[in-house]
Amino acid sequence: MAIEASGAGTRGRRIRLGMVGGGEGAFIGAVHRIAARLDDEYELVAGALSSTPEKAKASGLALGLDPERTYADFAAMAKAESQREDGIEAVAIVTPNHVHAAAAEAFLKAGIHVICDKPLTTTLADAKKLKKLVESSGLVFGVTHNYTGYPMVRHARELIRRGQLGDIRVVQVQYAQDWLTESLEASGQKQAEWRVDPKRSGAGGCIGDIGTHAFNLADFITGLEVESLLADLSAFVPGRKLDDNTQILLRYKSGARGMLWASQVAPGNENNLSIRVYGSKAGIEWRQEEPNHLLYTPFGQPPQIIGRGAGAALPPAARVSRVPAGHPEGYLEGFANIYTEIARAIRAHRGDDSGGKRGKGKKAPRLDPAVTFPTVDDGLKGVAFIEAAVKSSGKGGTWVKL
Amino acid sequence: MAIEASGAGTRGRRIRLGMVGGGEGAFIGAVHRIAARLDDEYELVAGALSSTPEKAKASGLALGLDPERTYADFAAMAKAESQREDGIEAVAIVTPNHVHAAAAEAFLKAGIHVICDKPLTTTLADAKKLKKLVESSGLVFGVTHNYTGYPMVRHARELIRRGQLGDIRVVQVQYAQDWLTESLEASGQKQAEWRVDPKRSGAGGCIGDIGTHAFNLADFITGLEVESLLADLSAFVPGRKLDDNTQILLRYKSGARGMLWASQVAPGNENNLSIRVYGSKAGIEWRQEEPNHLLYTPFGQPPQIIGRGAGAALPPAARVSRVPAGHPEGYLEGFANIYTEIARAIRAHRGDDSGGKRGKGKKAPRLDPAVTFPTVDDGLKGVAFIEAAVKSSGKGGTWVKL
Amino acid sequence: MAIEASGAGTRGRRIRLGMVGGGEGAFIGAVHRIAARLDDEYELVAGALSSTPEKAKASGLALGLDPERTYADFAAMAKAESQREDGIEAVAIVTPNHVHAAAAEAFLKAGIHVICDKPLTTTLADAKKLKKLVESSGLVFGVTHNYTGYPMVRHARELIRRGQLGDIRVVQVQYAQDWLTESLEASGQKQAEWRVDPKRSGAGGCIGDIGTHAFNLADFITGLEVESLLADLSAFVPGRKLDDNTQILLRYKSGARGMLWASQVAPGNENNLSIRVYGSKAGIEWRQEEPNHLLYTPFGQPPQIIGRGAGAALPPAARVSRVPAGHPEGYLEGFANIYTEIARAIRAHRGDDSGGKRGKGKKAPRLDPAVTFPTVDDGLKGVAFIEAAVKSSGKGGTWVKL
Amino acid sequence: MAIEASGAGTRGRRIRLGMVGGGEGAFIGAVHRIAARLDDEYELVAGALSSTPEKAKASGLALGLDPERTYADFAAMAKAESQREDGIEAVAIVTPNHVHAAAAEAFLKAGIHVICDKPLTTTLADAKKLKKLVESSGLVFGVTHNYTGYPMVRHARELIRRGQLGDIRVVQVQYAQDWLTESLEASGQKQAEWRVDPKRSGAGGCIGDIGTHAFNLADFITGLEVESLLADLSAFVPGRKLDDNTQILLRYKSGARGMLWASQVAPGNENNLSIRVYGSKAGIEWRQEEPNHLLYTPFGQPPQIIGRGAGAALPPAARVSRVPAGHPEGYLEGFANIYTEIARAIRAHRGDDSGGKRGKGKKAPRLDPAVTFPTVDDGLKGVAFIEAAVKSSGKGGTWVKL
Repeated sequence: MAIEASGAGTRGRRIRLGMVGGGEGAFIGAVHRIAARLDDEYELVAGALSSTPEKAKASGLALGLDPERTYADFAAMAKAESQREDGIEAVAIVTPNHVHAAAAEAFLKAGIHVICDKPLTTTLADAKKLKKLVESSGLVFGVTHNYTGYPMVRHARELIRRGQLGDIRVVQVQYAQDWLTESLEASGQKQAEWRVDPKRSGAGGCIGDIGTHAFNLADFITGLEVESLLADLSAFVPGRKLDDNTQILLRYKSGARGMLWASQVAPGNENNLSIRVYGSKAGIEWRQEEPNHLLYTPFGQPPQIIGRGAGAALPPAARVSRVPAGHPEGYLEGFANIYTEIARAIRAHRGDDSGGKRGKGKKAPRLDPAVTFPTVDDGLKGVAFIEAAVKSSGKGGTWVKL
Repeated sequence: MAIEASGAGTRGRRIRLGMVGGGEGAFIGAVHRIAARLDDEYELVAGALSSTPEKAKASGLALGLDPERTYADFAAMAKAESQREDGIEAVAIVTPNHVHAAAAEAFLKAGIHVICDKPLTTTLADAKKLKKLVESSGLVFGVTHNYTGYPMVRHARELIRRGQLGDIRVVQVQYAQDWLTESLEASGQKQAEWRVDPKRSGAGGCIGDIGTHAFNLADFITGLEVESLLADLSAFVPGRKLDDNTQILLRYKSGARGMLWASQVAPGNENNLSIRVYGSKAGIEWRQEEPNHLLYTPFGQPPQIIGRGAGAALPPAARVSRVPAGHPEGYLEGFANIYTEIARAIRAHRGDDSGGKRGKGKKAPRLDPAVTFPTVDDGLKGVAFIEAAVKSSGKGGTWVKL
Repeated sequence: MAIEASGAGTRGRRIRLGMVGGGEGAFIGAVHRIAARLDDEYELVAGALSSTPEKAKASGLALGLDPERTYADFAAMAKAESQREDGIEAVAIVTPNHVHAAAAEAFLKAGIHVICDKPLTTTLADAKKLKKLVESSGLVFGVTHNYTGYPMVRHARELIRRGQLGDIRVVQVQYAQDWLTESLEASGQKQAEWRVDPKRSGAGGCIGDIGTHAFNLADFITGLEVESLLADLSAFVPGRKLDDNTQILLRYKSGARGMLWASQVAPGNENNLSIRVYGSKAGIEWRQEEPNHLLYTPFGQPPQIIGRGAGAALPPAARVSRVPAGHPEGYLEGFANIYTEIARAIRAHRGDDSGGKRGKGKKAPRLDPAVTFPTVDDGLKGVAFIEAAVKSSGKGGTWVKL
Repeated sequence: MAIEASGAGTRGRRIRLGMVGGGEGAFIGAVHRIAARLDDEYELVAGALSSTPEKAKASGLALGLDPERTYADFAAMAKAESQREDGIEAVAIVTPNHVHAAAAEAFLKAGIHVICDKPLTTTLADAKKLKKLVESSGLVFGVTHNYTGYPMVRHARELIRRGQLGDIRVVQVQYAQDWLTESLEASGQKQAEWRVDPKRSGAGGCIGDIGTHAFNLADFITGLEVESLLADLSAFVPGRKLDDNTQILLRYKSGARGMLWASQVAPGNENNLSIRVYGSKAGIEWRQEEPNHLLYTPFGQPPQIIGRGAGAALPPAARVSRVPAGHPEGYLEGFANIYTEIARAIRAHRGDDSGGKRGKGKKAPRLDPAVTFPTVDDGLKGVAFIEAAVKSSGKGGTWVKL
């Protein structure tokens, strides 16, 4: 109950949320909505839910939105909502990749906080531009690298921060799926279609869709900086224009070495994001499909199965867990943690803005330093990673600085 | 996305919900609230959240309830809410066991649907009385045997219904925990305290708290009727008045045989509810702590790992899953499934009640026959199980008819 | 390399071994032969390998035995071998159960050490008689409850001896197989045929064949004495005369409680012997099908995965492991451990007998107290267990003293 | 019982075996001896067990060898044994790497079959020379890439041969250990010492010791030819001269892609050799530490857990399994399979040599085409792999043809 408990005292009004994309037939829109709702921190009140106006309208209706606040496109929504007294305070952008940059820009310029799906943009230039805009706006900007929301991922990170692994030597990270083993795009399946289309996905296929998650996970857990990488991207399914399998070697500035494998053509793998990190003192292993446990392997001692339970989970893990250990938490809970962390930042921001309401000597609410979520910097890193990998592979597999 | 999708078309207004119990310091109250919220089917608007009036008030405030609708006790709440135009349509009763019967009665008599925690009551007489009242009221009554909400549990049940296991021969079910390994109640921990107190828990300790879940799970999955049982209940921790370990043999009317073990003193077990069922053609195995997969073992063929994915999950499982396979769903999602199924029943009931709004020839909305949740009958079975086991054990471990 | 290393110094001549049963078509004979050979402690030189003389002869030839030492029956073998200068020093009895008692008696009377398969005999009276004979003979008598040969089983036992589990409260042991799910005996399969025939198996089917192993495993690991038991035996396959499924409650003298399940009709279970023991301080869990690891669960701490590696395995486990951790050891290695432990006892016995060869002041070789193998006492306990269970079940499932 | 049964009929005299290396303190010598003994195909009769003459003598005594046949060096042994009537027919070479080439040459020239540990030699030139010698000699030459002896590895290979995986796209293979996480060599531990010494190990450390096993496993299972590789070798432990961590990208001629990771500094990994292969129709996954099962994942169907049992294991797996499924087989059994396969080849060779004993029309015994073991070709491939990887890494990580 960490989350509800910690939120309860300062509850107040829910954050008014809008959504771009995520209409009928989309997968990730529904996920974002549940994630926003789980801790009761947001209220969905507006949407530009599809690039097809009729679909946008129908989707809004189905979700019970006020028809007036069901917009045909994000620009109209940004404009109208920023002018309402009760306009949205934050927007979730859950469209195909090519829309992210422009939509994010529009809302930031309208003074609205942004929660954006990954990869942040389809080009590094766009990502850099966006980063500048976020910084100058002073607004909250979260990127849904949702896997960093799992308690045991945070536990792993904390172990490394505390030095319990010693010097990190080896990082093995993978993200394997099988849903594109055959040409699903040829069947017209919507999810597959845009992901294999360079116009909507950008230069990376598998690497952009899931490789970035793997990269981000390693980055989040280890805190190590990559110096250079070497990538071998393949498109195994005949006719596919973007990579569906990605094999990468990583060299870290510290001297550590890494391997990253991402694939969407590995039969038997549903959503197999896994990471292993080895240091001079210990190792850790975590698998997204069984996220409630972390294997912690101190050298020379028996491996330990760390769960979310008190006495096992470190504070950064315990504070983002809702139910006792043994009661499994899953993907939606991890995703919701990102939303709730962003909500805490938005609430702190609210306090900053409402200075007038506080009397003399009253301090602005300070953001709890424990609050952690992926920001525009993480989004930018991901796009840089994609660009470097595509470049390396394009040159036949050579080392490229990151 | 099965749940949102199927609900979307008929959305309409959320169900107004009240809650009895579940205030500060309670574990299960927060779980019920998240479960109610997950699919956006309920809106919590009233509460009698604690038996201590100040605590009830403070808890209501913390949850953002209208202070007017934060009641000191369930009787006041039933009365006041039933008189409001916008009164609650359903109530969740999440108190210690001894309050269930009276509270449920009060709300049923006030025409309010009830969602009640298990065990249903502390005596079989109370349970029978309640069943009659539910039947005469025509109201919806759900019991939160939440583990029946897991997709793979429903898959297992469907396999058996389709005859894929052949004649069921053996049922092995267990529910093991370790949190009462030491005398936690002596430390004043609230959850432990009432659970080991016969006045608040009833005649069963471990058997009532978790043994009933194990019994219900076997009942739900197999559909077999127990003829008699033999129980050996132990209280291992010095000074404990109620059982903390329960070992039971089951004889089914069909000739099948079962073993049920429930324990709260088994170190290393967090919430280890597991079931195995073996028939003349195949077996199944499911473990709550890794709920997203089911082991299906047809005789003479390799075991299959059944997941929630399309092509694997049968319709009764697929319809209660929200995210693609590989994206793990957990305890809260399963719990929410029970709430959402009950919401569907309440919506169907609403249609029945609002006859006036339908013109001639318009049929009352019919409840989708796929909707499945534990009812007062299941609650009653659970209480009968406890009573029989306590009786058997009290006689030194003899066979008792159920 | 513990075993070879420790044996190397005192090597000397291999033990001359004979075998009764285990000819063509038998499963367990080949296992015994490999087990005897693995550590190079025995040399198979004689056999009465089948109750069918021609088969006995052919089997002996196939194994390369001297035709002169291939006997038509065990009586002839005991007689002839005991008269040879180079006669067998030990015999392995691997026949169907009904032959054990008479064969063992014949060899003991001939002054030959005995290694006997389990269950020891088909009646308790026979078992008691045999025990007396063993004691008066002073010979080595081992019973192949082979699962006690696994290093991690010995580790579990040592943990309990050292008090690391605290007071034992609960024992959950099972042995599940599926090979008799259908009427294999009707097909004439030899292994199935005799096992379901009361004349050759005795009064217990599944309980004698594998239930005794489960009982012995719990006995070996916990060291607890059973006070009484209650059994429910079933024969699920139509026409089967002996039980193929066994469910038992155990009450230990110490107040601990146990459940034992044995089944040969549980599809998906190949040889699923597993045990869990819970005490006031910790629990352990071990599974025969993945025997190289033991789960050790100290209360309030993360579970530990104990392997055979140095720094993890306690001395009683380390001394019966041959290869480094990570190099899995299996069924044959565990079985061989029993043979090698018995060899150590026979070597110590040899020393006692060969007093004349030692000069003054030379001490007789003393048996290393670490040497551990199941004896006639363990065999007797197993037969008592079968008899009590059959009696309990016959009375409709009542408590029977053990 | 496949192995004993199939061998039984043609049994005959055991093969006389000698051993070079493997004296006191060696790990792998004892393994080879057990492997040779397990199926009773060999008889150890001679040895040059250590490079230190006294140690060689003592080790021979401890093993019960005839002192006359305990040699000070392999040259003396090759010479003396080839002149004896009852001289060894085969020799096992289990020394540090740098001795392999010269020793193998000596025995081949003496007309003695060779079983050689891996890597075959320390230079590619030596390996090529040896290959020629083997071919001209007509003798049997086996290399103990022992992991190819596991039944489920052979099952995996057969699945691919039958086309059940479709076109192979991705190979992920790893071999992770942790025993060199700290500077064990500094402590004087013998196993560590020579493995990190370029003079005795050759140019590869981790890559030669275990990387070759991983490479061989992928080669054996997939049958794919590598076109080029790119390697990044690291020596993480200060002062270590040879690599202790190896990361490699593989490009196959067919267009498939692979990743190979080998490490001896990965805490928590004992002997974690694992492989996953994905094709257009299905995938497989196998882990050495739980070798009795193979995960087979046909696309769009539930994953299957393939065991060694009848009805599951394909013939090439079933023929090298000794006990029923559920009775785990381990490292020694797999190792013994290599020895027994080589014995079959030696027996077939014996038949060729003894032509005079066969009358007209009697055919020479033909080697069963199912017999499979790693040959000098496999050994040569392994050395070429090491050399290419060291070269690639030395150039800063570039693509090198194989």
